[in-house]
Amino acid sequence: MIEKVDHIGIAVRDLKEAVAIYESILGLELAGYETVDEQKVRVAKMHGGPDCIELLEPSSADSPIARFLEARGPGIHHICLRVDDIETTLARFKERGLRLIDEEPRIGAGGCRIAFVHPKSTGGVLIELSEKKS
Amino acid sequence: MIEKVDHIGIAVRDLKEAVAIYESILGLELAGYETVDEQKVRVAKMHGGPDCIELLEPSSADSPIARFLEARGPGIHHICLRVDDIETTLARFKERGLRLIDEEPRIGAGGCRIAFVHPKSTGGVLIELSEKKS
Repeated sequence: MIEKVDHIGIAVRDLKEAVAIYESILGLELAGYETVDEQKVRVAKMHGGPDCIELLEPSSADSPIARFLEARGPGIHHICLRVDDIETTLARFKERGLRLIDEEPRIGAGGCRIAFVHPKSTGGVLIELSEKKS
Repeated sequence: MIEKVDHIGIAVRDLKEAVAIYESILGLELAGYETVDEQKVRVAKMHGGPDCIELLEPSSADSPIARFLEARGPGIHHICLRVDDIETTLARFKERGLRLIDEEPRIGAGGCRIAFVHPKSTGGVLIELSEKKS
């Protein structure tokens, strides 16, 4: 009966500014704009969605996920972008003035090389970059 | 350089409980478990990801998105599930004790019939159900 996850909705203060971030920095493609009167909302639909959802439980009390749960309770934590070259992407993001949480890649799930970008630079969304283990 | 959105990460207090919700209620499929020592996290990977991301800007001051922005600032707002029959899904969710924000479908983006499920019932994630305009 449930066919699939259709989209993720992200609340933004300024649609034009957010579309610019999602297009030029995060590499998504604008599919179109719409105003939904019943929901009192202006929507920009961006192509490029994830394959899967990861549920994350802290494995120790000093885990970043434990701190998140303590501060905000359970909920959506981050969006992960797949990149082909994490060092180059981090260098480009730094050049553009984005605030990096990890200046150097670390090891994430599946042995991927990962790094987090601070939500202050991306309109309130914690972004993970992930390069597949070769 | 950015290939695609890879996944969304959701912070949960209890992985087993969350997997049960995501499998049996939200209809995703468990791909496997992993403990990532460097991130101090236990991960459950669930198949079934969205095609797109919607950026949502309030079109009036009394929009639910305006209230969200005021309370929490910009950030991830909801995950939307595509369903084939929204009335039946709502009835099933109600039977299972889920708290519905909309008991009756309303009109969303693209003319879809939509309804929201309260995050209290889904581990802190606001879930939208959406049936395509036929």
